[in-house]
Amino acid sequence: MWQTDTFLRDKLLGDYDNSLDRDGLSGRRVAERFQELSNVGLTEENGSNRPGYTAEEREAKRIVSGWMRQAGLEVKEDGAGNVFGRLEGTNSELPAIMSGSHVDSVPNGGHFDGTLGVIAALEVVEAWKQAGHQPKRTYEIAVFSDEEGARFNGGLNGSEAVTGNYDLAEKRQLRDGDGLSFREVLEQNGLDEASYVAARRDMKDIALFVEVHIEQGKRLEKAGLPCGIVTGIAGPCWMEITFTGEAGHAGNTPMNDRKDALVAASAFITEVHTLPKEISDSAVATIGKQEVYPNGVNVIPEKVKLYADIRDIHLETRDALVEKIKRTAKKIADVYGVAVNWKENLRVKPTPIAEKTQELLEETLQEFDIPAFKLPSGAGHDAMIMGNSVPIAMLFTKSKDGISHSPKEWSDLNDCMQTIHVLKRFIENVQIAW
Amino acid sequence: MWQTDTFLRDKLLGDYDNSLDRDGLSGRRVAERFQELSNVGLTEENGSNRPGYTAEEREAKRIVSGWMRQAGLEVKEDGAGNVFGRLEGTNSELPAIMSGSHVDSVPNGGHFDGTLGVIAALEVVEAWKQAGHQPKRTYEIAVFSDEEGARFNGGLNGSEAVTGNYDLAEKRQLRDGDGLSFREVLEQNGLDEASYVAARRDMKDIALFVEVHIEQGKRLEKAGLPCGIVTGIAGPCWMEITFTGEAGHAGNTPMNDRKDALVAASAFITEVHTLPKEISDSAVATIGKQEVYPNGVNVIPEKVKLYADIRDIHLETRDALVEKIKRTAKKIADVYGVAVNWKENLRVKPTPIAEKTQELLEETLQEFDIPAFKLPSGAGHDAMIMGNSVPIAMLFTKSKDGISHSPKEWSDLNDCMQTIHVLKRFIENVQIAW
Repeated sequence: MWQTDTFLRDKLLGDYDNSLDRDGLSGRRVAERFQELSNVGLTEENGSNRPGYTAEEREAKRIVSGWMRQAGLEVKEDGAGNVFGRLEGTNSELPAIMSGSHVDSVPNGGHFDGTLGVIAALEVVEAWKQAGHQPKRTYEIAVFSDEEGARFNGGLNGSEAVTGNYDLAEKRQLRDGDGLSFREVLEQNGLDEASYVAARRDMKDIALFVEVHIEQGKRLEKAGLPCGIVTGIAGPCWMEITFTGEAGHAGNTPMNDRKDALVAASAFITEVHTLPKEISDSAVATIGKQEVYPNGVNVIPEKVKLYADIRDIHLETRDALVEKIKRTAKKIADVYGVAVNWKENLRVKPTPIAEKTQELLEETLQEFDIPAFKLPSGAGHDAMIMGNSVPIAMLFTKSKDGISHSPKEWSDLNDCMQTIHVLKRFIENVQIAW
Repeated sequence: MWQTDTFLRDKLLGDYDNSLDRDGLSGRRVAERFQELSNVGLTEENGSNRPGYTAEEREAKRIVSGWMRQAGLEVKEDGAGNVFGRLEGTNSELPAIMSGSHVDSVPNGGHFDGTLGVIAALEVVEAWKQAGHQPKRTYEIAVFSDEEGARFNGGLNGSEAVTGNYDLAEKRQLRDGDGLSFREVLEQNGLDEASYVAARRDMKDIALFVEVHIEQGKRLEKAGLPCGIVTGIAGPCWMEITFTGEAGHAGNTPMNDRKDALVAASAFITEVHTLPKEISDSAVATIGKQEVYPNGVNVIPEKVKLYADIRDIHLETRDALVEKIKRTAKKIADVYGVAVNWKENLRVKPTPIAEKTQELLEETLQEFDIPAFKLPSGAGHDAMIMGNSVPIAMLFTKSKDGISHSPKEWSDLNDCMQTIHVLKRFIENVQIAW
């Protein structure tokens, strides 16, 4: 059964605290905008299905463009499909403040991931418009294309085009589930490789990029806070680690004459779990995927391939953890008499966020009597890409049960609105302080 | 490239020690018989493909029946497709001695598994025939149908029919890869359910069943011995154990707030590996198969299903190990804050072999100056089924590299012939001693 076409708005407004409707912000408007975007690509399980560079993402960008124009912004789409809404500052010589996120989703994803950051950035303009306020610095709202990478198994294609920080040869290798190349998909969207390359902007025009996003974790919920200050965006290192022992009959091979690859891999996984805390509070290491060969009930495993995801927000600590994990793999392989080898499938630089920016956010939170809760972002975001070229700030909004990329993804409207209040004040404060 | 049709014989005879051709045994005859059976269902990789109840198994049984008749035996096929060759004893009132094995194979299996036991049993008669010897007790050679169970994923169908020790309702559930029922497959073989049931024999007519089989392990090779005394046939207990934790984003979930099912499963596997030696020298426990859910690189595993294969040759020690493993699963689930549950998919009784029978084999080995090396059988054999109803003895022949169920399976003719010498003497000794 599909829901009514106001299900999300009604649920959001259900326990809305109307006292948050002040300083020009409107909970109803925000709720209605969540609803309107959710109606695009709504799935039978009541999730969002708007993969990047699909008709659904285009439709969502068309809707946001309309809101931008209504709010008096100058709207422009670049050659990568990114949409920008521009509000000229009183001193248009100064580099701009930019805020935004994305409107694409994973297949059957949630209604808040990405959309919150776009709606929040726009709500700031709505408030200013009502107050007749024009900021000193030009303010730009960004809707980046294809952040999730659901189509190509590798996202951030919009923000990468803007920064120019990508490898075109790698993009040319991309194929979607139907075998379409990145170029063919761009062409489906009325774009092409040349326009994609031309989407690169002069990053000196941007003073700061600030992104509001749902946490996709449980830390704010456990702390009982509506929002928190992101300290950095963890860069993942993905390793494929293979332990190779000897197959054998589970009945006919004595215990002391085995080279069981799964026993070695298991000892490794157990130990890896204990390593991040030796490195830093924000470091994490996960073995999420594992394949056993030949995987027969009565055959001693000959080979185990496992996939490690290792993250931290600082390059040195993340890389120290990667090295520690490699040494552990070698040590355990020796103990169990098996071979081990690995390859790196991905190594993304972490994007730490400057102390100065975090302090400004902290001061803004104080204005609202919200305790400053600092937390790393384990997931990648458009801000991670932008952060390679310009200063960034990031605010997380409380997620229910930490669930994300699922129809069950949820953030209360009260928490969203409190975050938007903070975002608005922060952008106003930054005009002066920056 | 297919091999010549004498490849196996030539390789077997290549380094044959002719001094083993004594007391009526012939290495050439044995090698030629291996060759003749291997030519039935020979695969492109030079393996044997004679699954139970197929035309290939029937052809192999037809060939053996011919050899039996040539050797002067009375040949009979029962309603389960088992072939028996009978040599009447001088005192035909006494229960018979039976020896044999099977001629079916796993798909693309080896040339020695099963066939060695059949050829060995027959070679004893060839030797007696040459010497004009008639044993006191009736001697029967058994070729059991479908030992491997390659067709139904559950074997020993021939020996089970003979002992009557099976559940007909379970047989009725069997389906082969083409969806054919056990009954339909019997009918393809000119048999039916009634004839299968009628194949049950009065086990009081059998004094002892003795089986020669390749070891399918490396212990004899490491000991440098041609053959060894089997101390018992381990009964496997197969358990499916599921650890259930909580999925979460690999980047956004702090290490101290995880319920990682794979970390728990890994700690369990590491500990299980150390448990058998606390129980007995012959106990083994293997996790050969494991499935991780959802098995995504950046998702904390919510669920891990693993399959434990637990064996020993004594019921008490095997069951003690099963209990210890259950307690370990519970303990580790508690430590890692995850849930665990299990179900048993199989629990076969171990078949210990009587000390008295082992001692008789030991005395026979002494006649050949072969040190008595005792080893458990981890794999199931027809002797395991027979052992539920009659006394059994079992001799293992050295396997090269412990490889079995593969075209690479190999046993040297010298080792096979030494085992056959021991088998012949043992059967002669047993006539008197029993």
